[in-house]
Amino acid sequence: MNQPTITLTTDFGWADPYAVAMKGVILSINPAAHIVDLSHDLPAQDLVHGAYFLSGSVPYFPAEVLHVVVVDPGVGTDRKLLFVELDSHRLLLPDNGLITLLAERYRPTRLIELTERRYWREPVSTTFHGRDVLAPVAAHLSLGVEPGELGPPVHDWQRLPIPQPRYEEKAVHGEVVYVDRFGNLITNVSEIDARRLFRPRVLMGGQSLEIVSTYAQAPAGRCVALFSSSGFVEVAVVEGRACDLFDAGRGVAVSVVEV
Amino acid sequence: MNQPTITLTTDFGWADPYAVAMKGVILSINPAAHIVDLSHDLPAQDLVHGAYFLSGSVPYFPAEVLHVVVVDPGVGTDRKLLFVELDSHRLLLPDNGLITLLAERYRPTRLIELTERRYWREPVSTTFHGRDVLAPVAAHLSLGVEPGELGPPVHDWQRLPIPQPRYEEKAVHGEVVYVDRFGNLITNVSEIDARRLFRPRVLMGGQSLEIVSTYAQAPAGRCVALFSSSGFVEVAVVEGRACDLFDAGRGVAVSVVEV
Amino acid sequence: MNQPTITLTTDFGWADPYAVAMKGVILSINPAAHIVDLSHDLPAQDLVHGAYFLSGSVPYFPAEVLHVVVVDPGVGTDRKLLFVELDSHRLLLPDNGLITLLAERYRPTRLIELTERRYWREPVSTTFHGRDVLAPVAAHLSLGVEPGELGPPVHDWQRLPIPQPRYEEKAVHGEVVYVDRFGNLITNVSEIDARRLFRPRVLMGGQSLEIVSTYAQAPAGRCVALFSSSGFVEVAVVEGRACDLFDAGRGVAVSVVEV
Repeated sequence: MNQPTITLTTDFGWADPYAVAMKGVILSINPAAHIVDLSHDLPAQDLVHGAYFLSGSVPYFPAEVLHVVVVDPGVGTDRKLLFVELDSHRLLLPDNGLITLLAERYRPTRLIELTERRYWREPVSTTFHGRDVLAPVAAHLSLGVEPGELGPPVHDWQRLPIPQPRYEEKAVHGEVVYVDRFGNLITNVSEIDARRLFRPRVLMGGQSLEIVSTYAQAPAGRCVALFSSSGFVEVAVVEGRACDLFDAGRGVAVSVVEV
Repeated sequence: MNQPTITLTTDFGWADPYAVAMKGVILSINPAAHIVDLSHDLPAQDLVHGAYFLSGSVPYFPAEVLHVVVVDPGVGTDRKLLFVELDSHRLLLPDNGLITLLAERYRPTRLIELTERRYWREPVSTTFHGRDVLAPVAAHLSLGVEPGELGPPVHDWQRLPIPQPRYEEKAVHGEVVYVDRFGNLITNVSEIDARRLFRPRVLMGGQSLEIVSTYAQAPAGRCVALFSSSGFVEVAVVEGRACDLFDAGRGVAVSVVEV
Repeated sequence: MNQPTITLTTDFGWADPYAVAMKGVILSINPAAHIVDLSHDLPAQDLVHGAYFLSGSVPYFPAEVLHVVVVDPGVGTDRKLLFVELDSHRLLLPDNGLITLLAERYRPTRLIELTERRYWREPVSTTFHGRDVLAPVAAHLSLGVEPGELGPPVHDWQRLPIPQPRYEEKAVHGEVVYVDRFGNLITNVSEIDARRLFRPRVLMGGQSLEIVSTYAQAPAGRCVALFSSSGFVEVAVVEGRACDLFDAGRGVAVSVVEV
């Protein structure tokens, strides 16, 4: 990599100067940093959405990239700020459960609590650690600072109560865990689990849905199930919004059953 | 160009990890790629809007840039994925009409159907060819792969039914084809056609509008016509939203006439 | 800096091709330019919001960066377009008050009116000077053109009527000047002024609010005051939106008083 890449993921939106202040701080310390926006439009303070966003983003990036994540309702409290290595992926983020899903998939090989203030921006505000701690630490890491210099190792981290599916012999019972921009309902029933069943169908909101291979395989307006690009059972309305049809968001029950 | 530039244009929004997965795939294959966001906020699955967006974007870029575009309601069907050269501009996108307007302006000098799976990401999902086909192909092109290696040449492409204006001796009749963020109504009557008329006025929704040279030339609230920065007749309300005034979107009739 | 960085701040949104046309023009003139998006989602034509956005953004960036800003309701009128140096920060923007707050903090050391058309894109539209003047001028500056070649020096600039707080012996009276994405109400009473008072409390909408050090210090739903990360008194609802509670936007009165 000919220049160090730092990605930013926040719930700050684009209309306020918060994400921008982080960019400025990074470039002030390392003008050669290559900043890539992952998102500034995460739903405000929604840790579960953030955890799913990261699990759908970070795995695709090469190992050299450093990911800075700020969804931080507990800013200013005693929640820790962490440097995390998950296999080869590296993140800087608050210890509030954002890594829950990534940590189910990758082994956290190193966690460090950020305590060394010489890598921070002074004075440190009580409400904006993204600007005053995470951004300057990211810039220093991109300049070659060793993670071990940032603070002491820690061995545990916060986990979100992510719902797990329940298994029967001929069924898997799960729920909607993520609603995307297109109104598609993504569940926590994996494609692998669903494919173990013989001729599986998907039950949601009193409907029994066939599993198709892509959206355009059914007529417009038809509600279908399919396997999402992230490997989970998804309910969609062709050229429509499943979330409106079911008045459904996270938590709505879904079952995949043999018929 | 000291590094290969790849632009991304999608309707994925910023809150979901889809556009981000494409960035990760590109950087995993070519860490030196310079990714520029054109938009991830195109109206979902709106091919006409996408075609206008591209015709207002691509012409301004230098030839070395590679544009990846994903508005793809037909993902997973037998619609083709294409590499397209339009004069010196280069795009990767589904063959669903997105290039209709660009292809009216530039001669498509080369079209290649993407079939060579060795440049794809495996396994290829049925619902996310942006991540699994277009992104890896873009990265390989940026590393020097010849377009001819991507698949066979093709000689035709899908076209959208873009409305054309109707000409009379002293009038041009068209319609609104694009509504922008400011609520301005952009029509398909070109500045060149309108200027051929003697003292042209613009008729829309029962109003006869004078053509001014810029927004601030009329008082706030006044509905005016002017020539848009893209070279078409546009209807605007000074410091207001013309689309609200006319309750108007695409398809509303407009006439430019001599008075 | 191994490549020249140009930032873009506009109210163009991401769905239309306007901001993108600026990126293309810049890269066409200087393919090595590194473009960083600050925002394209500023509230349309809102100069006061733009001025606050810039005052919360530009100070964090290193001096070598060039900031291009387009919030330009007067485009096509005789309002000037300026190159501005504020200490070491450099901006290109319309002379419509956008620099009001920055100019209170930094000394404008150099102002140049853009008049030299050889650095512009021809033909110059009457409604899109961002694309036809600011973007090409930015690219030429990034290639080493001296600011003095762009036009004649000027010695004054437009100012917005930014409200100033009123001081009493034991109180400061101000108002809300900015509402952020989280619904937090940021006022024009500075932390320094508030801290001069003995045991200050914040009065707004009939409520008397204690000043806490961070959001999570009070229970969810509680309305509190605190010092914003930009150094001003801010009113927030823990895990809620203060702007909804007070049905409040810019202009709502706030007082900080001794009790």
